[in-house]
Amino acid sequence: MKFKVKIIEISTGGPFVVLFNESDAQRLDVRALDRVRIKKKVCLADVTDDETLLKPGYIGVFLDTSAELALKEHNVIEVARAEVPNSVWLIKKKLDGKVLNEKEMNEIIKDLVDNSLTESEVTFFVAGCYTKGMSLDESAYLTKAIVGNSGRLNFKSKIVLDKHSIGGLPNNRTTPIIVSIVAAAGFLIPKTSTRSISSVAGTSDTVEVLAPVSHSKEKIMSIVKKTNGCMVWGGTLDLASADDILIKIERTLGLDPEGILLASILAKKSAADSTHIVIDIPVGDEAKIQSRERAKDLGNKFVRLGKKLGLIIKPVISDGSQPVGNGIGPALEARDVLEVLMGDGPPDLREKSLFLAGTLLKMAGVKDGFERAKEILESGLALKKMKEIIKAQGGDPNVTPEKISVGKYTYIAKARSSGKVVQISNHLVTRIGKAAGAPNDKGAGVYLHRKVGEVVKKGEVLCTIYAESKEKLENAKSLCAECVFRIK
Amino acid sequence: MKFKVKIIEISTGGPFVVLFNESDAQRLDVRALDRVRIKKKVCLADVTDDETLLKPGYIGVFLDTSAELALKEHNVIEVARAEVPNSVWLIKKKLDGKVLNEKEMNEIIKDLVDNSLTESEVTFFVAGCYTKGMSLDESAYLTKAIVGNSGRLNFKSKIVLDKHSIGGLPNNRTTPIIVSIVAAAGFLIPKTSTRSISSVAGTSDTVEVLAPVSHSKEKIMSIVKKTNGCMVWGGTLDLASADDILIKIERTLGLDPEGILLASILAKKSAADSTHIVIDIPVGDEAKIQSRERAKDLGNKFVRLGKKLGLIIKPVISDGSQPVGNGIGPALEARDVLEVLMGDGPPDLREKSLFLAGTLLKMAGVKDGFERAKEILESGLALKKMKEIIKAQGGDPNVTPEKISVGKYTYIAKARSSGKVVQISNHLVTRIGKAAGAPNDKGAGVYLHRKVGEVVKKGEVLCTIYAESKEKLENAKSLCAECVFRIK
Repeated sequence: MKFKVKIIEISTGGPFVVLFNESDAQRLDVRALDRVRIKKKVCLADVTDDETLLKPGYIGVFLDTSAELALKEHNVIEVARAEVPNSVWLIKKKLDGKVLNEKEMNEIIKDLVDNSLTESEVTFFVAGCYTKGMSLDESAYLTKAIVGNSGRLNFKSKIVLDKHSIGGLPNNRTTPIIVSIVAAAGFLIPKTSTRSISSVAGTSDTVEVLAPVSHSKEKIMSIVKKTNGCMVWGGTLDLASADDILIKIERTLGLDPEGILLASILAKKSAADSTHIVIDIPVGDEAKIQSRERAKDLGNKFVRLGKKLGLIIKPVISDGSQPVGNGIGPALEARDVLEVLMGDGPPDLREKSLFLAGTLLKMAGVKDGFERAKEILESGLALKKMKEIIKAQGGDPNVTPEKISVGKYTYIAKARSSGKVVQISNHLVTRIGKAAGAPNDKGAGVYLHRKVGEVVKKGEVLCTIYAESKEKLENAKSLCAECVFRIK
Repeated sequence: MKFKVKIIEISTGGPFVVLFNESDAQRLDVRALDRVRIKKKVCLADVTDDETLLKPGYIGVFLDTSAELALKEHNVIEVARAEVPNSVWLIKKKLDGKVLNEKEMNEIIKDLVDNSLTESEVTFFVAGCYTKGMSLDESAYLTKAIVGNSGRLNFKSKIVLDKHSIGGLPNNRTTPIIVSIVAAAGFLIPKTSTRSISSVAGTSDTVEVLAPVSHSKEKIMSIVKKTNGCMVWGGTLDLASADDILIKIERTLGLDPEGILLASILAKKSAADSTHIVIDIPVGDEAKIQSRERAKDLGNKFVRLGKKLGLIIKPVISDGSQPVGNGIGPALEARDVLEVLMGDGPPDLREKSLFLAGTLLKMAGVKDGFERAKEILESGLALKKMKEIIKAQGGDPNVTPEKISVGKYTYIAKARSSGKVVQISNHLVTRIGKAAGAPNDKGAGVYLHRKVGEVVKKGEVLCTIYAESKEKLENAKSLCAECVFRIK
């Protein structure tokens, strides 16, 4: 059937969509979400019964579709029904509990990245992976498919180190310290990180206090060439882009299917050209992983999946019972990081960073990896490297903890009874930090003056809330900062 | 946060959507598919990085959203993040394999009808019902929820008869004959039907050859009051509207979760105020149901689910091994129907219609239901009733089979060998009928001159293809009409 083009001045951002008047749709025998072929390209049909919006005989073409197909207002085009892509039947196969092979998995991910699948079809894929589980082979195929269908970095080096932490623990900002130590030791560590998804700050939010984190692939390659390392936001890099689409759908229901989780993490590492990866798995009642058994099992799967992908992986099970470090919020965490690099700072953050950096050095073949990591930190070489990287990313290398400004509205929470701190609630700290305005307000957050195991007297300071506005401080205060600490 | 309204001249047709510039979205801490609250109404956020489309500080408001919220260009409005509705967590519960209770099922369907759920969330619900199955109680709750959250008819009668056929069999156009007989016998039978979904013709496509089928609820009530029956299209009636949304999502992957299928059919019947329903379940290799065991099991579930809903249901397992009737296509089927009512026509269509009509009469308490049905048909009372209904719906009561025009482009398929017809392919007849232009071209279709069991000689006529254009006839011819018949 022939139609006259009417451009609709809006982008749909997903699959290419065209709009039909209901009477035309009936004649063409298409319904909403059916596919039609225009100039050899498959588009998704939408249908309206509103003739003021679209008269019969016209086809509404959204901006991204008109750009893709080079269509202009009043062009006359031929439109025909199109079959659904084969990947849709493969999604059904997965939903029916069957196992997908490498070619099939790649077909789904290729169509996903090409925007050939509807939101509903992608959702069925996620639902299939969630309800039917995935074999380790399937996770490997998914990882390869994600990496194969997106951009990637290429450092042409036999050893590229990387680190990942299973989220859920406030602060735990080991990354900038590890990168500084490892890069100072002469190894490549091109670290891409995320922004906060549900936390008070992501690594990128924190690093951004010190230097810009959004860079092109070319710029990143040059930063790493100059300094051995980087600490950038992965969001604009188009690395593992299929993964971003899957995560968007998973968020809808707060799902985190293990098979996709494994693939998602290793795809990002693989696309960053990493070869040796340490994976930090914090375990705690209020961490993402709540038992050592589960952590061991997950670590094991990472190792086995890594083998299938040619990646060397070392899982490290860590203490997730309370935040690591004292500051929670972008600026407060950046202060903690600088203090550790300057030889001071929260002991737990320092120790954990040293252990993970040492592990990476050992993986890279440095026999006395732990001693070497300590040496690099204590000699000031790590701080020097940090400043180099900050400079290379466009920040001020002369930054000091004092120069980092924090919210001027503060509230000090004091102990309501005397005793020993037996627990600090990760969940409540997170809620308070977010209510105070983090991560968007960089200076907002919570500073813990006490950690688990310390003895406090009634009336002594427990923590300080920082906010950049009075209103947000009130919001944060109302959540009971005193309740963060369980004192016995 | 405050925003200035920019109206976007397009309707989204689903949940109420508003658009943010990426920088604003970050400050508001919302991502695409998150929810925001505006004037106490929850809307779905979408995000663009295109500043020519939407500048920071502005909120893009789509037409249906601006109408709902009474927003005008340049209005300044307060926007806050909103939590996801509780129904989303209930959907997760179902996806996790847990059983939903009546209140929970209603909450999901209410939000679905209110457009409070995203396409992705509805998809997860369908995926949950599909992969985890549904208990009969859940199907009952779903049926009640669908009926409770949509429009319905109300005839204030103790007995309202109805009939449903599990689809997949070409022609099988018993409905107009049954309605005529049952209405002539003095019982109410307000039949709503569908148009073709994947077949050559749906009941509504066929009836439309004889009379208009799109009527308002009020008009339907008056037609039924006048004639005891009707044969209308259910599509515009807003009966069981939640069901339409679920079906749209199911179609994406060609799913038909049994629990939803049962609820979907009985919700439509219940919304039409039916009390006694006969359900025709054709069994055949190329029918929807392929074994008698499966048909018995399905019939059983209908009866048990009906009991929970206060509906009396009688399943009838029928022969689905070949099309019922001779014509396949709207006009050809309408001819078959009229011929049967006039005392002639295809014997299989006549017998099946009589059996189903007789069954309904018996269910309504008529002891000699089968004899009575036959009597009504043979006396011409059914034909008289049919004409009454055609007239009441706005058609020409003086219609005859000859007056119904069929496609002028024809192709006659002849036997390539002599022998007995042992099979007629439902699938191939369907593909040929659709290629010939049905159901949109009313006169297109296939007429079977021979049925299973008949003996043919090489060169004798098997079937005729009718099309309204030469091109479509060629399309249909290319599918090999001779191959429809297996001759041994």
